Amino acid sequence: MGRVTIKDIAKEAGVSATAVSLILRECPCRISAEKKALVRKIATERNYSVNQMARSLATKKSNMLALILPDIQNIFFSSLAKHVENYCRQAGYALLIASSGDVYANDKELLRNLEARGVDGIFLIVSNESYQEYDELVWQLEGLTVPYVLVDRVYPDLNCDSVSFDNEEGAYQAVRYMLNQGHKKIACVYRKDGTGSGSKRLDGYRRAMLEYGCTVPAEYLKKGDYRLESGYAAAEALLEINTTAAFICNDMMTLGFLKKLYEQGLRVPKDYSVVGYDDSLKEFLLEVQLTSVSQDIERLSGIACELMLERLDRKRLEPRQVVLTPKLIVRKSVASYPKH
Amino acid sequence: MGRVTIKDIAKEAGVSATAVSLILRECPCRISAEKKALVRKIATERNYSVNQMARSLATKKSNMLALILPDIQNIFFSSLAKHVENYCRQAGYALLIASSGDVYANDKELLRNLEARGVDGIFLIVSNESYQEYDELVWQLEGLTVPYVLVDRVYPDLNCDSVSFDNEEGAYQAVRYMLNQGHKKIACVYRKDGTGSGSKRLDGYRRAMLEYGCTVPAEYLKKGDYRLESGYAAAEALLEINTTAAFICNDMMTLGFLKKLYEQGLRVPKDYSVVGYDDSLKEFLLEVQLTSVSQDIERLSGIACELMLERLDRKRLEPRQVVLTPKLIVRKSVASYPKH
Repeated sequence: MGRVTIKDIAKEAGVSATAVSLILRECPCRISAEKKALVRKIATERNYSVNQMARSLATKKSNMLALILPDIQNIFFSSLAKHVENYCRQAGYALLIASSGDVYANDKELLRNLEARGVDGIFLIVSNESYQEYDELVWQLEGLTVPYVLVDRVYPDLNCDSVSFDNEEGAYQAVRYMLNQGHKKIACVYRKDGTGSGSKRLDGYRRAMLEYGCTVPAEYLKKGDYRLESGYAAAEALLEINTTAAFICNDMMTLGFLKKLYEQGLRVPKDYSVVGYDDSLKEFLLEVQLTSVSQDIERLSGIACELMLERLDRKRLEPRQVVLTPKLIVRKSVASYPKH
Repeated sequence: MGRVTIKDIAKEAGVSATAVSLILRECPCRISAEKKALVRKIATERNYSVNQMARSLATKKSNMLALILPDIQNIFFSSLAKHVENYCRQAGYALLIASSGDVYANDKELLRNLEARGVDGIFLIVSNESYQEYDELVWQLEGLTVPYVLVDRVYPDLNCDSVSFDNEEGAYQAVRYMLNQGHKKIACVYRKDGTGSGSKRLDGYRRAMLEYGCTVPAEYLKKGDYRLESGYAAAEALLEINTTAAFICNDMMTLGFLKKLYEQGLRVPKDYSVVGYDDSLKEFLLEVQLTSVSQDIERLSGIACELMLERLDRKRLEPRQVVLTPKLIVRKSVASYPKH
């Protein structure tokens, strides 16, 4: 006996093949509960697999999109994932999320696998490591048979659909604000990533400091990795030297930084001033009113989806690169008159 | 001219078909950079799609697992996703994450889609709505052609692989602790979900209150939806009545609850006592030392992956249901001698 088909089940149950298909795919249909139960019973007994049905659909549109991101536990990315998911769902697409752990090899593997699994398009936030492997990754991206959109972390030289923030400008605004409040000894906790967003933020910090005639001793610069622990360690090191304020290039590090200050009995902005980046902590902080560079994640997500849908609907052939300007949200974490 | 094959490219480039396959899949191989570039050039010119290669693999193992969860922005779930992802990667599997938005129809759709996309197995944290649609979802689960593991939210009557926490016991421990500190007027912010984890926590609260001879007026019970806003609203309502403490059934709601208290100038535990659930805020709270029921997410994730791998390796045929006991982590958010 060959494999059971939808037609076999239909015949046995005394309903149309369409009805069987609808019932087994759990779609709404006007069939009595008894008939539904019967169809399911036959399908189970005869070992009919929904997968069989699915396989025949595999070459068609899957109505699934994928998002590759560096770290699902980072609240900036999980918020972004949520927004992208919402927009996708509104447009009739399910979203698969995969995390690279900020590792280049995983970016590559995931791109390959997701394409092979038949997703209709891929949103990619490249891993930090991928900046070092520009040529290889670009080659892979250009070979993709599905549309892709680079989100948040982009390669400026690559002519593809992308949406990102002007990181240099965001950092510049933040540091200029601190300088205007009277601070001169401003530390920077940053992440080094070649030509990536982290390095751009460091550039913005340097530009503002230079413009205001402030020197930047090497000890003012603390390297981190965008994780809480590295912010904590940076605070530990900076408390040893004579700074009055710190510009911290992401809010997970800001959180670690604040933790250390609070453990030492120091209060913000009374004892030390802090400006963060992402404005992702406003729901989580009870005690500190954090000034932070806000990146409108909802807008970023919306544009990413718009770019994707334009591609999927073949409305546009030329790549579009959108750069959004971040906005400094001023709250009470910077003192006006630094003491030291 | 038919579709170009790996063999065609191999012939044209003067290398073996295996070499072409390795180069195009970006695997390490001992081929000169020139030859690699040539193979890629030919593949691009002849429009060879990596997808073609992938398609032939589609019926084999994909080395991809999927995790369906209710809300990617909830820090409990994003932390769980991170841990599951780590375990999967260690075992050689990539993980796809999809969020149901706590909607039953999305659970169904995602199960169908992920199976059709050829993942090797599915971890499922059912949506809250799915408790109401038990029969339908169970029918779908039993028809899956790939292994699945229910995580965190389980159906006690369904004989399948699952791992979860004893929610009734966790809540009981928390409320007993507050009672032992002298509190009697203890509110409960909970989520109603039929026979789900939320309702179990409410049961545990009731059991402890009953055991200590405390009455539970209806106004002590505030319904929430596990989101921050509902915790905030619950605090607003509870400040109108005469309670000294609240047991809050998840930490996102606890955060909202604390926000409201802080906005009113109230401090924890000086003015009001709070116990949360999840112990997921310890990194985020700077001043409040929150007592919370800790669910060891890493352990939960580890066992979920263990159950899945046993299935995939066909090491076990009988379903295994693991129930973990949560642990109350006592910190300073409960006052010993309530004032009112």
